Amino acid sequence: MKLFSQVADLHECLDGLRAQKKSVGLVPTMGYLHEGHLSLVERSNEENDVTVTTIFVNPLQFAEGEDLASYPSDLQSDTELCEKIGSDVLFIPSLQDMYPEPILTSVQVDDFTKRMEGESRPTHFAGVATVVAKLFNITGPCNAYFGEKDWQQLQVITKMVRDLSFRVCVIGCPIIRHRDGLALSSRNAYLTTDERQSATVLSRSLQKASDLIRAGETSSVDIQKLIEREVASEPLVELDYVETVDGSSLIPVDEIVPGTRILIAAAVGKARLIDNIDAFTGITGFSS
Amino acid sequence: MKLFSQVADLHECLDGLRAQKKSVGLVPTMGYLHEGHLSLVERSNEENDVTVTTIFVNPLQFAEGEDLASYPSDLQSDTELCEKIGSDVLFIPSLQDMYPEPILTSVQVDDFTKRMEGESRPTHFAGVATVVAKLFNITGPCNAYFGEKDWQQLQVITKMVRDLSFRVCVIGCPIIRHRDGLALSSRNAYLTTDERQSATVLSRSLQKASDLIRAGETSSVDIQKLIEREVASEPLVELDYVETVDGSSLIPVDEIVPGTRILIAAAVGKARLIDNIDAFTGITGFSS
Repeated sequence: MKLFSQVADLHECLDGLRAQKKSVGLVPTMGYLHEGHLSLVERSNEENDVTVTTIFVNPLQFAEGEDLASYPSDLQSDTELCEKIGSDVLFIPSLQDMYPEPILTSVQVDDFTKRMEGESRPTHFAGVATVVAKLFNITGPCNAYFGEKDWQQLQVITKMVRDLSFRVCVIGCPIIRHRDGLALSSRNAYLTTDERQSATVLSRSLQKASDLIRAGETSSVDIQKLIEREVASEPLVELDYVETVDGSSLIPVDEIVPGTRILIAAAVGKARLIDNIDAFTGITGFSS
Repeated sequence: MKLFSQVADLHECLDGLRAQKKSVGLVPTMGYLHEGHLSLVERSNEENDVTVTTIFVNPLQFAEGEDLASYPSDLQSDTELCEKIGSDVLFIPSLQDMYPEPILTSVQVDDFTKRMEGESRPTHFAGVATVVAKLFNITGPCNAYFGEKDWQQLQVITKMVRDLSFRVCVIGCPIIRHRDGLALSSRNAYLTTDERQSATVLSRSLQKASDLIRAGETSSVDIQKLIEREVASEPLVELDYVETVDGSSLIPVDEIVPGTRILIAAAVGKARLIDNIDAFTGITGFSS
């Protein structure tokens, strides 16, 4: 595995590979890698000649008071995991390399970013879209892999790519979960043992909702109420939102139909956790 | 010369040329080409293996009530001029090809876009930055040529390229002027004979300012007053702004120093005209 910290070195490497007609897969991450990230690298390995994994904790997507300073990090372990899973390149740029001067440019994706995460974190998606645009420009044409856990982010990036004509194919990959249903997240590291136990209510309530939907329930309001009740039963979990939306446009729906996605966010101790499911499919993708 | 209207066809052509290690120059325009545009194509021809000229009247950069509907167009003449000057590729995408679905993404460059043109045309530069980002993505790594007449635009694009790590080298090229000093502009077509005559006050006042500066004047306020008086002497010309700024950062300066740029904008009849000079160099670049 090649390890780069400078944009120029990554360019040189990828230019050489592209001259040999190698296809490039990109897995952008903020590090502290878990099986969810590794599933993206594996998928990229299957579908591309070369996989580039990037680790960059992007300050633009954290607001004042969020967990930028405490975001978990273990570059030693990340490097070993990337090597073991077969990432061809690991790119870990420094803050100075990514933002050598004050950045004044931002990429905004309206409508897609106003509600849900965008409402709770108003500057978050501009920070995400900006750094992802930058990583796409640095990497060049590629297939780019993102986890479906950040469903809204996945749709924001997909829309940005279409709107700005990036030569990038955005590929969403299934959420990977612990055996008890909790979606893997670097932020799970913040949870105490009790909080970790309580946090399973997120996936459990989504699964119950999906069970009801497959049994014939079509009312968004009723499904949201069900989930609110479930989550309220766990005093350590404070629901931020539960929404039923069209999975692509993220527009709220009154009636649940194929393509509807249910998204949820909650505070659990110091962690802000999100999860989502396809309304008719329910929970899938448990980790080994 | 190859003429393309579809993004996919341009991709295929440029991918083939890049595989042969050809360097690409890009000249993005809104058409109705004049010698100013052609000087960009010539410069690109000198510095690149292949020059791609694009013509697209980008609706995003026009506000309600501006001249989008009446913007002058002559694709027949433009095509002949591009062929004659030696552009290798002419790309004229349709509105449908550029914006096949409602665009929700915009690229914003703060600070650089708040004053001068940005104050008079608040949505203008987001429209410019967005379409230029799109054209850069469509074209891929290149040298991109822009006229210095749109000085603020040139700085906005330069900053966007640095901030978002586009693999593009932005090259500003000197303003081309009529013999009487008026900067070439597609919008000069809107001028009546009298207005055309009056419009020369813009370059004339800039030249007078530069003469004074080279004679020792360093006060921005005095230089601005001089230009305001000059322009006021032409009743057909209504000054929008005159500013003395650092040429790169666009931050206003009190004292004129090397690197200071003087920018001016005015309404002349139906036309909104802009011009600018390097404070110490004055007027250069007359057309043949």
